[in-house]
Amino acid sequence: MIKVGIVGSTGRVGSLLIDDLATDSEAKLSACHVYDELKKPVPEGTVVTNDMGALLDASDVIIDFSAPVATEALLTQIVENGGNKPLVIATTGFSKHQQNLLIEASKKVPILYATNMSLGIAVLNKLVSLASKTLKEFDIEIVEQHHRYKVDSPSGTALTLAEHAAKARDLDLDSVRVSGRDGDIGARTKDEIGVMSLRGGDIVGRHTVGLYNDGEFIELHHTATARNTFSKGAIKAAKWLVNQDAGLYSINDCLGL
Amino acid sequence: MIKVGIVGSTGRVGSLLIDDLATDSEAKLSACHVYDELKKPVPEGTVVTNDMGALLDASDVIIDFSAPVATEALLTQIVENGGNKPLVIATTGFSKHQQNLLIEASKKVPILYATNMSLGIAVLNKLVSLASKTLKEFDIEIVEQHHRYKVDSPSGTALTLAEHAAKARDLDLDSVRVSGRDGDIGARTKDEIGVMSLRGGDIVGRHTVGLYNDGEFIELHHTATARNTFSKGAIKAAKWLVNQDAGLYSINDCLGL
Amino acid sequence: MIKVGIVGSTGRVGSLLIDDLATDSEAKLSACHVYDELKKPVPEGTVVTNDMGALLDASDVIIDFSAPVATEALLTQIVENGGNKPLVIATTGFSKHQQNLLIEASKKVPILYATNMSLGIAVLNKLVSLASKTLKEFDIEIVEQHHRYKVDSPSGTALTLAEHAAKARDLDLDSVRVSGRDGDIGARTKDEIGVMSLRGGDIVGRHTVGLYNDGEFIELHHTATARNTFSKGAIKAAKWLVNQDAGLYSINDCLGL
Amino acid sequence: MIKVGIVGSTGRVGSLLIDDLATDSEAKLSACHVYDELKKPVPEGTVVTNDMGALLDASDVIIDFSAPVATEALLTQIVENGGNKPLVIATTGFSKHQQNLLIEASKKVPILYATNMSLGIAVLNKLVSLASKTLKEFDIEIVEQHHRYKVDSPSGTALTLAEHAAKARDLDLDSVRVSGRDGDIGARTKDEIGVMSLRGGDIVGRHTVGLYNDGEFIELHHTATARNTFSKGAIKAAKWLVNQDAGLYSINDCLGL
Repeated sequence: MIKVGIVGSTGRVGSLLIDDLATDSEAKLSACHVYDELKKPVPEGTVVTNDMGALLDASDVIIDFSAPVATEALLTQIVENGGNKPLVIATTGFSKHQQNLLIEASKKVPILYATNMSLGIAVLNKLVSLASKTLKEFDIEIVEQHHRYKVDSPSGTALTLAEHAAKARDLDLDSVRVSGRDGDIGARTKDEIGVMSLRGGDIVGRHTVGLYNDGEFIELHHTATARNTFSKGAIKAAKWLVNQDAGLYSINDCLGL
Repeated sequence: MIKVGIVGSTGRVGSLLIDDLATDSEAKLSACHVYDELKKPVPEGTVVTNDMGALLDASDVIIDFSAPVATEALLTQIVENGGNKPLVIATTGFSKHQQNLLIEASKKVPILYATNMSLGIAVLNKLVSLASKTLKEFDIEIVEQHHRYKVDSPSGTALTLAEHAAKARDLDLDSVRVSGRDGDIGARTKDEIGVMSLRGGDIVGRHTVGLYNDGEFIELHHTATARNTFSKGAIKAAKWLVNQDAGLYSINDCLGL
Repeated sequence: MIKVGIVGSTGRVGSLLIDDLATDSEAKLSACHVYDELKKPVPEGTVVTNDMGALLDASDVIIDFSAPVATEALLTQIVENGGNKPLVIATTGFSKHQQNLLIEASKKVPILYATNMSLGIAVLNKLVSLASKTLKEFDIEIVEQHHRYKVDSPSGTALTLAEHAAKARDLDLDSVRVSGRDGDIGARTKDEIGVMSLRGGDIVGRHTVGLYNDGEFIELHHTATARNTFSKGAIKAAKWLVNQDAGLYSINDCLGL
Repeated sequence: MIKVGIVGSTGRVGSLLIDDLATDSEAKLSACHVYDELKKPVPEGTVVTNDMGALLDASDVIIDFSAPVATEALLTQIVENGGNKPLVIATTGFSKHQQNLLIEASKKVPILYATNMSLGIAVLNKLVSLASKTLKEFDIEIVEQHHRYKVDSPSGTALTLAEHAAKARDLDLDSVRVSGRDGDIGARTKDEIGVMSLRGGDIVGRHTVGLYNDGEFIELHHTATARNTFSKGAIKAAKWLVNQDAGLYSINDCLGL
């Protein structure tokens, strides 16, 4: 059994990681990093600690869904104190200093860094690049939908999909993105990419990238049906990462894309 | 065979009406009103005229996809000169005077007035009213899509669908309609109705009205697959209208909704 | 707070009912009927009993997701021992005797009987009837999808939708239903209704009823996004039922359809 | 202007080719091969002939949507009489002898052979291979829909998509394909691939390949919105083929896939 340590164990995905590891046949929870205390029950023998060194010692691989300050502590432990375990990192919002630390650490241990751990979304990004590049005359429109409580639009995942579509055509997304249409706005321009946000109900996440031409269209769609899509993707990534050499990897490397 | 006269015979739908009547087993083209000349070939014996009286004399029923000025001439003929034939009218953009003429004329002849002659859209409006009223706690979002050359957004049909959704909840559409979402705009408000416009390819028309709640959602969708959906609907309406008494009818009356 | 008693409390939906009542602001769990023991923790003071009389005494309304034998015991208690509480019943597979008991009991207390407690599906059935009846020339095709573990096809809900579609056209579903197409089977017959079953992943339930004609089509779709759609629907029904007179009701009565 | 000769000019796609070439800015109709006479009007100067040699002489490239016997005559002309023009061939149903002729001819001239000339379907096949291979634990289900007059099921395009999905997992499609589900058939097996056929209205062609897993699913969809998708694809292929060396090409080569 692969021993998995968690950074960010009191967060939403951290909690799902604990649940998913409890029923996994190849990996199990070994340690949780906490700043205060861990209210959720964990298996007997699990190391619960605020010491990154102790976390690393107890684990074969670390999964980190935390905040930049915690990730910085984790990376510093690797770089300065010689910790030597693979890291799956899904934290966002790094400073320049923290990004450099990530690169330094990846010279000593294998690190997989991804802001969306869904395998399906990783594949969709790849398919969008290929379709956008091959079908250059097709118009691209993206629709994303999330639950009624989401406060920002469009979703980060929709923007990443749009970036893949734009980059495949050498377009700058900021110049071509359209987030609404209202009034006598005239005919569609060739390069614009609509990214429309729908909100409602308890939708976990739906994304559709459409490519439209005279005579035919293609729509590439992803739905997340459960909130643990991200924890499951991270566990799959961790199992793969324990067999890799030091270096910086993406979810695509794990999928062989 | 029911003899059908056309006002607006040089327009896009007028041309489709001529084609569809050529293959209809119960109705045939009898007369075309034109201001100049009709370039499209029509069957021998068809009356081509700029005289509304002659058009009415040659026909059992009139279908009008023209402009307000032509419709005004048609209605005036009925009101002042005692023309006595049923009218299917799909023209939009009437002045107050023209609206009053329409009502006057409907006291003498049966008139079916509708801005969208698609049977499917008429049914969809009805279904949206029912669902919106019954499922009041569900969030409503509408998406419409048309070809890349459409210059206005959202489509008139999408606005009509949104009005049906809003009215069923005693909401004022202008106050609750949202046509785009971008940035940190906060959680969705209960009453807002998103109406998002996609453009691309040669899409004739796609409309989806979604109702989203915790645990479930409903999506009511319509696609127009061919540009003659409107001409076919008008011909169906004309066949029904010839058997009605004087009065003002909607497409719903024709469908028994 | 409305006091809710549960029959079938050890079942899958029974367990969800206990969870959902724990967070409801207008209703709370008062009693659970069990044959053996209840392993799931319930709030202090909850009556856990194998006596239907005690269950009724402790509750304002009963929700029953059990098996015919338990429902029979519940109905017998009402009919013979004068129990006098409203019943929401979702059990399926009754014998003739049990059906008669249900009708007898409904003369003494209000009973809402429904095999699918989803509000959205109740509305969809209504919309399908209306569309099928109004758009008689449209071809009807139904697609349902569930998780990979479902053992029977098509789903009961898909069959109910198909029955609504068929009945609106005076068709006998058994004579017109098609569950697969393979080979040189010839052109589609006018009356046939395809009901196709897809299986895969962890899909809770998706149903689409499509109506297709020359020039346009309509698709009416429902997705269940969470397994507690049924428990939530039953709780909503229970809140409505406590204010009704004796009689037999459907989910449509509760929705005012 | 590239001069295009047509074999199969009296067929459905042949007729669309004549229309599409009339408005093309880079290619124009030069010759039509017919066995009897061509009823459709063609531009003055077009060679209408039953002689394959004359057709080749008048053209820069040939597009062939005919039947095996006509294609055989075309290929024989190339192989035996030294005709030397590129060929776009979309005919199906070749005998072994005819296949060998195709290969022989491709040693002398560039030949692009494809049974579906839609660019979108070519891309979709590629995306399906990639997704099926990368997401091996996802269940695959395919749905295709065509108009009510189609006599065979499933569509050839659906079978080709299914073959791409199966081959990417080293599966034999004939062993795993399921074309209907009805009754107590038990849980889904891991490898089965559902290929379900819907029929109705005037649908030109819709194909969806779904991949379903716990927590997420992907759906890859193609719609043909107009019947000239195939003629337009063939013209695009012809423009590309005139600049290639002798050899046998697929639509993927033309797209750079």
